[in-house]
Amino acid sequence: MLDFTFHNPTRILFGQNRIKDIASEIPAGSHVMITYGGGSIVKTGVMDEIKTALKGFTVSEFGGIEPNPTYETLMQCVARVKAEKVDFILAAGGGSVIDGTKFIAAAALYEGEPWDILETYGARVTKAVPFGTVLTLPATGSEMNCGAVITRKEFQAKLVFSHPSVFPTFSVLDPTKSFTLPERQLANGVVDAFVHVMEQYLTFPVQGGVQDRFSEGLLLTLLEEGPKALKDPEDYDVRANIMWVATLALNGLIGAGVPQDWATHMVGHELTALYGVDHARTLAVVLPAMMEARREEKKEKLLQYASRVWNLSEGSDEARMTEAIAQTRAFFEAMGIPTRLAAYDIGEEAIEKVCAQLTAHGLNKLGEHQSLPPDQVGKILAACL
Amino acid sequence: MLDFTFHNPTRILFGQNRIKDIASEIPAGSHVMITYGGGSIVKTGVMDEIKTALKGFTVSEFGGIEPNPTYETLMQCVARVKAEKVDFILAAGGGSVIDGTKFIAAAALYEGEPWDILETYGARVTKAVPFGTVLTLPATGSEMNCGAVITRKEFQAKLVFSHPSVFPTFSVLDPTKSFTLPERQLANGVVDAFVHVMEQYLTFPVQGGVQDRFSEGLLLTLLEEGPKALKDPEDYDVRANIMWVATLALNGLIGAGVPQDWATHMVGHELTALYGVDHARTLAVVLPAMMEARREEKKEKLLQYASRVWNLSEGSDEARMTEAIAQTRAFFEAMGIPTRLAAYDIGEEAIEKVCAQLTAHGLNKLGEHQSLPPDQVGKILAACL
Repeated sequence: MLDFTFHNPTRILFGQNRIKDIASEIPAGSHVMITYGGGSIVKTGVMDEIKTALKGFTVSEFGGIEPNPTYETLMQCVARVKAEKVDFILAAGGGSVIDGTKFIAAAALYEGEPWDILETYGARVTKAVPFGTVLTLPATGSEMNCGAVITRKEFQAKLVFSHPSVFPTFSVLDPTKSFTLPERQLANGVVDAFVHVMEQYLTFPVQGGVQDRFSEGLLLTLLEEGPKALKDPEDYDVRANIMWVATLALNGLIGAGVPQDWATHMVGHELTALYGVDHARTLAVVLPAMMEARREEKKEKLLQYASRVWNLSEGSDEARMTEAIAQTRAFFEAMGIPTRLAAYDIGEEAIEKVCAQLTAHGLNKLGEHQSLPPDQVGKILAACL
Repeated sequence: MLDFTFHNPTRILFGQNRIKDIASEIPAGSHVMITYGGGSIVKTGVMDEIKTALKGFTVSEFGGIEPNPTYETLMQCVARVKAEKVDFILAAGGGSVIDGTKFIAAAALYEGEPWDILETYGARVTKAVPFGTVLTLPATGSEMNCGAVITRKEFQAKLVFSHPSVFPTFSVLDPTKSFTLPERQLANGVVDAFVHVMEQYLTFPVQGGVQDRFSEGLLLTLLEEGPKALKDPEDYDVRANIMWVATLALNGLIGAGVPQDWATHMVGHELTALYGVDHARTLAVVLPAMMEARREEKKEKLLQYASRVWNLSEGSDEARMTEAIAQTRAFFEAMGIPTRLAAYDIGEEAIEKVCAQLTAHGLNKLGEHQSLPPDQVGKILAACL
């Protein structure tokens, strides 16, 4: 097992009708800015519930944070947070709103040009405006971690930053708030969480026995519950499991003490930045090809995955690895997510563009061995066509 | 899944040579009191490492905290913490030292008679002196939770309290510090952690899919690693897995959103208070009999346990339940821990005494259904003889 430091101070309020409990989590007298996305929280009544819970606080709103939240939009909110002397931010939505809010929270107290925060991957952040979240879309795990992914349109760049000051102080996880999600967003969330686990699991063995068991437990739960959620969108327990799994998939726990990959994510980010494909869909395309291309390098863990997650015990090592990759792809397709670039109208020309962007962003050595150069990524993308 | 609130702010510093990192976790200028047990940390060099790390701080020591730490001993330390104006406590040892330190930390700032803290199960605590831990004995999980068990000799009482103010601010988990443990303490630790998981897992199903998978993952890891640790006490990865599993077994995670039992613990505490039997050994005696007596009530989860933990698929439901209980007992015995009261020179007379103490402590309705009265406990104890 590798050495690690683990610290996650976010308080989780899980269950139905927990929004009413947020007032006691926010310092009395705070000026609270509610941040949100396209307005579905207004239609579904979440906004009303929040405002009822925040009676007695000064409340402002900033809507319109888009999927793959942009620097351009977020900087408008940063200006308002400063001008209105906001003390606390409440992000209501999914990973994009929460990621965007992390940037707003850090940028509002940042000395200098806030794009630096992304270019230095968070290294120069020292503090942030405190914030909580009300999660409506289980997927990214942003509600219980200190990382965010931000896009800058003018540079076609989608970059990551993380800093301990942007852990949410609390997050409300009410599974019923995900009942009204479109099927596409639900499926995206399940696949996103699945790939988050894979990035921290499918590397090389370091005798992290408990981390492996936890990762396998998350994958098995997603395999069981994902298809059920498509069939019966209002099954509370199914949604509860998906919501809690998505949080646990990226709250630092399963990745503590083990190597991590993240090559699929880095390639996926460039595809989203260039072509606007949903984040989870880029992962569903890239992961199977990544597994195939690196099957020798990942052999031991891939065989463990075949055995413990897919219960494959027959045939040669090679046959079981091939089957595990095929089953992974089939699961994504069964969730309604195409796993080929062609389905997103992306052709061969993408290969060169993605590789150029990876180089531009200094991402020349991806993967758990920091050994994957852009030209090998090009071959992997060719297998995604 | 049941509603829950989850919050665990303890920072874990995991790995070899992490003691050197503690200085940056303690406010500069603090007067630090090091609390410890029988002195093994002095012999093994842990004390020297700590003192080296604490250069520049004012340091005091309080040794002699016994297994099943007593109010009588701990109150001596409380007096010193007050008199010496200690700002921060550093507990170095296993669960007893850490539990004792939690009581010291809360009692030093408590208005009134500190035994109240136990009699009200922590309800009246409002604050505590901040403290960290250096763990040497993986077992109780106390290093990452806010509960403690304290004994008062004059009352033959062993009671529990918990309060968020007694989460350690940090805990150092260095698996090499457990290399020198006597076999008996190692075995106790593995069994203690195993039963902690069982108390939160073997109840009734609430569709907590992910909690079940995590619990099963912890149990499977203990089954794999426990016997290896007895054979090769200096295998780092084996010790690392046991240490991290014991922490995760009782840090609030696997119990969030599911029912909990704890009847085995409550009965075990009385056996320890009356007869001085090691805590884990009381659990190893009581758990198999508890499982047997309540097999119908726990049937669904017991069958799941039989299948997923012991891989039992042949035979009737009854046969698989019987076999799973027998395998559990056999595992404890294989770890060198007898599972009958006779092995500890305890006879029939214990039955009445334990039941009387449970009644005296208001523990009349034990278990996940709050349905287990002392007379049924008496029958269970009769099956432990």
